[in-house]
Parts: sequence; structure tokens; C-alpha cells
Amino acid sequence: MTQTPSDLRPGARLAAMRAGAPLVHNITNYVAMNVMANVLLAAGASPAMVHAQEEAPGFAAIASALSVNIGTLSPAWAEAMEASAAAAVAAGKPWVLDPVAVFASPWRTEVCARLVALKPTAIRGNASEILALSGGTAAGSGVDAGDEVASAEAGARALARSSGAVVAVTGPVDLVTDGERTLRVANGHPLMPKVTALGCSLTGVVAAFLASGDDPLADVAAALAYYGLAGEIAAEGARGPGSFAVAFVDALHAITPGDLDARARIEAA
Amino acid sequence: MTQTPSDLRPGARLAAMRAGAPLVHNITNYVAMNVMANVLLAAGASPAMVHAQEEAPGFAAIASALSVNIGTLSPAWAEAMEASAAAAVAAGKPWVLDPVAVFASPWRTEVCARLVALKPTAIRGNASEILALSGGTAAGSGVDAGDEVASAEAGARALARSSGAVVAVTGPVDLVTDGERTLRVANGHPLMPKVTALGCSLTGVVAAFLASGDDPLADVAAALAYYGLAGEIAAEGARGPGSFAVAFVDALHAITPGDLDARARIEAA
Amino acid sequence: MTQTPSDLRPGARLAAMRAGAPLVHNITNYVAMNVMANVLLAAGASPAMVHAQEEAPGFAAIASALSVNIGTLSPAWAEAMEASAAAAVAAGKPWVLDPVAVFASPWRTEVCARLVALKPTAIRGNASEILALSGGTAAGSGVDAGDEVASAEAGARALARSSGAVVAVTGPVDLVTDGERTLRVANGHPLMPKVTALGCSLTGVVAAFLASGDDPLADVAAALAYYGLAGEIAAEGARGPGSFAVAFVDALHAITPGDLDARARIEAA
Repeated sequence: MTQTPSDLRPGARLAAMRAGAPLVHNITNYVAMNVMANVLLAAGASPAMVHAQEEAPGFAAIASALSVNIGTLSPAWAEAMEASAAAAVAAGKPWVLDPVAVFASPWRTEVCARLVALKPTAIRGNASEILALSGGTAAGSGVDAGDEVASAEAGARALARSSGAVVAVTGPVDLVTDGERTLRVANGHPLMPKVTALGCSLTGVVAAFLASGDDPLADVAAALAYYGLAGEIAAEGARGPGSFAVAFVDALHAITPGDLDARARIEAA
Repeated sequence: MTQTPSDLRPGARLAAMRAGAPLVHNITNYVAMNVMANVLLAAGASPAMVHAQEEAPGFAAIASALSVNIGTLSPAWAEAMEASAAAAVAAGKPWVLDPVAVFASPWRTEVCARLVALKPTAIRGNASEILALSGGTAAGSGVDAGDEVASAEAGARALARSSGAVVAVTGPVDLVTDGERTLRVANGHPLMPKVTALGCSLTGVVAAFLASGDDPLADVAAALAYYGLAGEIAAEGARGPGSFAVAFVDALHAITPGDLDARARIEAA
Repeated sequence: MTQTPSDLRPGARLAAMRAGAPLVHNITNYVAMNVMANVLLAAGASPAMVHAQEEAPGFAAIASALSVNIGTLSPAWAEAMEASAAAAVAAGKPWVLDPVAVFASPWRTEVCARLVALKPTAIRGNASEILALSGGTAAGSGVDAGDEVASAEAGARALARSSGAVVAVTGPVDLVTDGERTLRVANGHPLMPKVTALGCSLTGVVAAFLASGDDPLADVAAALAYYGLAGEIAAEGARGPGSFAVAFVDALHAITPGDLDARARIEAA
């Protein structure tokens, strides 16, 4: 892989995120909540989990960014997600959609379509989820991807163009596109999908980078490279997925902007 | 304790589970969700947490197995549990019931009785829970067992006969019975009950073994031995329940079928 | 800081809590549930998470103490919190309120005011939360404190007098007051706020100490010193917030009453 193009400046984007310490409003699933909060704290952001319709839309308007994840979905939460996304857009705040297992039921597919119509700043999913969201047929049945990143490339570009979102397909090599430009991010480690909710938590980190960013495509790519680099560092001393998960949080906290510039592996596709 | 009877083949059952990588549908409590997902991923299964009535029954029919746990129960979740269990049975998929603190309130006892009537493939609980479920009087007041495994032995056999389920009573030495045959599993470590949700997560592992098994009694016993062995290995380097929990997930991932055959301590009772 | 006044006896309070192994009923947020259960188990208590209105008030009456935390609040949970707090009071059991982000929405402020009116034995929050609860203006926007502990001192005393609760303001140096006497607790470590739900979980530990205590002010101070000392010990070998969180649970389990008497840093204010 070639050197990261210097104009993408992932280290500067990490530094800007930490300087802003953005308040990230998360409406996410029960499995991910704790991990996501710890990941965001370790990265340097300030997480808050607020889902009640009595306060979530108001909170979305004052937060720095919103992250919406449809895992462990229920009707009341879906309503809060839609109202909060609309409030974030109205307040000019970025918001990110994580379409967990969008293909798992017709109801889930419908909720997700309504969320996409609310103009997320970015959408992050695995290949099966992005394929399903772009109208293709996914091989996934649970929450894990049954498809290769490459198979979702055309769908990701089409989804980016139709939705206006930056679309990230994560996997062994991630793909990020705004429909015109496309980047690949090669950082990461095979133990990452063996720890639950690391994908979900990445969506929160993407929201944090967007809160302080100036170029959504580059912001998303920087977040992915930072996250994948933490996985590479964590794997160095890990004896399995348990110790890997612990070291991963340590690495998110320890990585400096200089580390990220030196080790990010982002290239134009 | 004598050698594990060779016809039980716990290592082969672990290998079959990993080869199948079963999609395990969990409707479980908020405390356990994250641990359960990590435990199942480390073991080699594919976990999914789906509880909404809009999709849970449909998901139960396509998953490889269902695990139902009544901790942090609420009426809406109880309805989804019943509908999902019925769907699993109709689709010929195994399902496992974890009757957490069934004795804690009359309402919880009633919900659990309805679930037992839906013919779980297996029921796993501590001695107080199995005693209560079999109509006896339990000494437990919270979620921890106040009773000894031995005190629940007759109740477990009676429950197995009346329900048709394999019943597992877990504790220092586990007991597993189908009402006719009874096995004891001596693997485990005293730090295991000092980590929350390890019992709950075991129920998911039992579901995973049943998904690829051919003999529910032997499948459940193999799952218990595998889980207890992970506890023994984790305890070797642990400095307390925090580091134990981390090493436990590493051990679930590292144990090979050969390790399990060599170190399982299962015997006929 | 001066020596802990010998009449406060934090070590004896830890020993009494462990001897009683109190059943602590927690109605807490989704982010904290797992951590809180592990923290309470490691400390020596027996945690239970029960929130359904069908059983929570009845459970509060039989538990040793109740801990209520308004993070991830929803209307149904708020009702269960109020009914459970009333049941605890009626049964003569101590209960503790954690007013997470009480300032984040008018609805949250109202729910919290109703809970305060139900006479908690203790209230534990960060400076922004205690300021807001005492009628002041808080600088916090998310769940993290934007205010210094000292700025909440007068508010804490006033809140203690008006509510009848022992009020604890936690931060770099904690403040504990019953409106007349005031103590400061200097144990702790800067990594503690980098791990999510450690504050929430502390509230459960406070409930556990109150269950077996005889002097709420001293009981709360002992719980804070014990918790802060675990943070100090955990930081010794930590490489970041991930390994710190693991070592923290180990330390809660390892600290002896003698360790606590030797290293508690409590002084009269």
C-alpha cells in the first residue's frame, strides 16, 4: 500500500478531535453501550447515552454530534432515533448511522430506510449491511458480514450519491466514499471482529471526528485509520480476544497524532 | 473423579460447534449482553441479540439456536421470549432457558412457568433456581444460589422428566440430567461466581453446543466442561476477578478439542 | 492531608460490609449495569438488577439497600424508581440516589426532584450534578462535571439539610456532608473518570456500606476512601484506561480492612 496522501492529515484530525473533546450523543444498542462509552473516553471525546423521547431530540441539538445504531432495536427507540436525527440536522450537527443487521427483518429494513432519508453525515457498516442498504442482496444472516468489502464497493458509491452521506464499508481493508472520491484504509487486525461492539463503537468515534472536522471523507478515513491502528498495537501483546479488548482501549488512549501520521495506511482507490 | 467416559466426546462436540459457528439468538438481560456476546464470539459461535416483538420470533426461526434469560425481565420482553421460544420449537431449533432468580417475585415465577411449558431443550440454573422451578423451596433471595447443588438433584430429575428438558444445575460440581441419565461435571473455579453474568453466558454456550449436537445430555455436559476448564486456565495467572474475567475470554478462544478431551472431568452419577 | 480521624474506622466498615454481604438492589443505567455488578461482587456485596414495576418495589423491600441511578432514564423506569424508593423507605432500608446529568433536560430535573423528595439516605454526584440539584447553575452539559468540587460545597450542605440525605460530591478530592459535619476524602486517581460508569458503580458501593453501617456520614466516607484507594492501586501497573479498569476490580477484591485503615485519606473539613 502506498503512503497516506499528505493532504488527508489524519494526525491533525485526531488532535482536533481531542482538542474539541466533543460531546457525542449515542443512541446505541445494549450490547455496545459500555464499550462505546469507554472507547470514546479513551479516544478523548465525552460520550452520553440518551434515548428517551422526552429528552433525546433536545439533547441531540446541544451535543457536538449524534451516533445512531439500530442493534437491539425497538419501536420506541426507533422513534427517538428519527426525532434525534432530525434535531441534529436542524441544529447543523453531524450524525452517523450504523445500520446493524439491516437485512435481519423487514421492520428493521423499513426503520433504516427512514433514517437514511434523514440525511446522515456518514453511514458505517459491514459489507453485508451496506449491500442491503444500497438495494443489493446480502449474504449476512446475523450481525456478522457474510460478504467481502469489494462486493459492496459499487453499492457504497451508489448509496453515497443517493443519500448524500459519506459511506464507510469496514472489513479487512475498509472502503470510504462520498460517491465521487474513494479511499481505502488498511489498518486493523483480525482479532477486532472477535470482540463484540467494536464496530458499533467505531461509529461513535467517526461521529467524534466529524464533530471537529472540515472534510467528512477525510475525517471518516482518519477515524478508521486511528481505530485500526489501535487494533494493530493491541494485538502485539494479546493472548486472545479478552486481553486484546483491554489493550485496545489502552491503545486508543496512547496513540498520538504523530503515531497516526506515521502508521496510517490510507490510499486513494 | 474418574476419567470422562470416552463416548461423551466433549472435544468432538467443541469441534463440531466451531465448525458450525452457530448463529445464537439471545434474549438476555442487560447485565449479561456484552459478556455473553464476547463469550460466544471467543468460543466460536456468532451471537445476535434481538428482543423486539416485531422481529424476534422471525429471527428465532432462522437462527441456529435460541437462548432465553429472564434476568432484568419486563412484560414486553417476556412476551417476546414466549413468542420466540414457540417459533424456535416450530422451526425445530433447540432453545435453552436460564431461570434467573425465578423465586424473586410471583410474576417472575409465572413467566418462567409459561416458558417451561414451551418445551426448552435445556434448562440451566443454580441450585436455588432449579429447586424453585421444580416446586421446592429455595434459599436464594437475590441472583446468587443459597442452596447446594446436591439439594437440587431430585428436583432436577423431576423437572427434566416433567418438562422434557435436559436440566443442568451449576455450582462447584455441576449436575446434568435428562431424568434418566445423570452426569457430574467437576471443571470450574471459585472465581467464576465473582464475575457477573458468567452463568448467564454459559447458557448461550449451551445453546451453541446444542445447535450442532446430536445428544443433548452429552452436548450440555461438554459445554459445561469446556466452560469450567476455561475458568481453571484463567485462574492460573489471575490477580482477582477483573484479570480473571479477561483471561477467561482468552481461554475460551484458546482451548482446543484436544485440551478439552484431556482435561474434562465428567462422570456418570 | 492529615491522618484519618480514628473514630471514622473505615476498615471496620469495610469488614462489616463484607461480613453482611448485602443484597444491593440496583435500578441503574444500561451503561453501568455490568460494571456495577462486577464492582459490587468484587467488593463483597451481592448485586441484583431489577427494574420492572411488577417486582421492583417488592424486591426493594427485601433487599439490604437500594441504589437508584437516572442515567439512560425512561418514563417507565422513573416510575419504578419512585415506587422502589418508597418501598425501601417503608421497609427501613437505606437507599442512595445518583442524579446523573440531572441538568440535561427539564424532564430529568423533574424526575430527580421527585426522587429527592422520597428521602434518600445519601446522594452521590459530581459537582455539576450536586450544584444543579441544590438549585444552582451547573456548567456541565453531558455527563461529565464542568464544575469544581469546591464550587458545590455550599450547595451540598444546603441539599443535605433540605433533603435529610448525606451528600457526596465526588471529584479529585471528594466532599461528604450531612449538613452539619463535613469530611473530605482525598483517595483516587485521574484515570478513574476515563473509565465509564465508575462513578455510577461507586453509588452501589455506597449503598452496600450503608446497609451494614451505623453512621451514614462515616459509612459514605469509608466507601469513597475504599473506592479511591482501589483506583490508586490499580493505577500502579496500568498502561491506560483499559488495563486500569481491570486492575481496579482486582484491587476492590484485594484491599483488606487493614489496607484501608492505613491508606484512607479522610479529614474533617
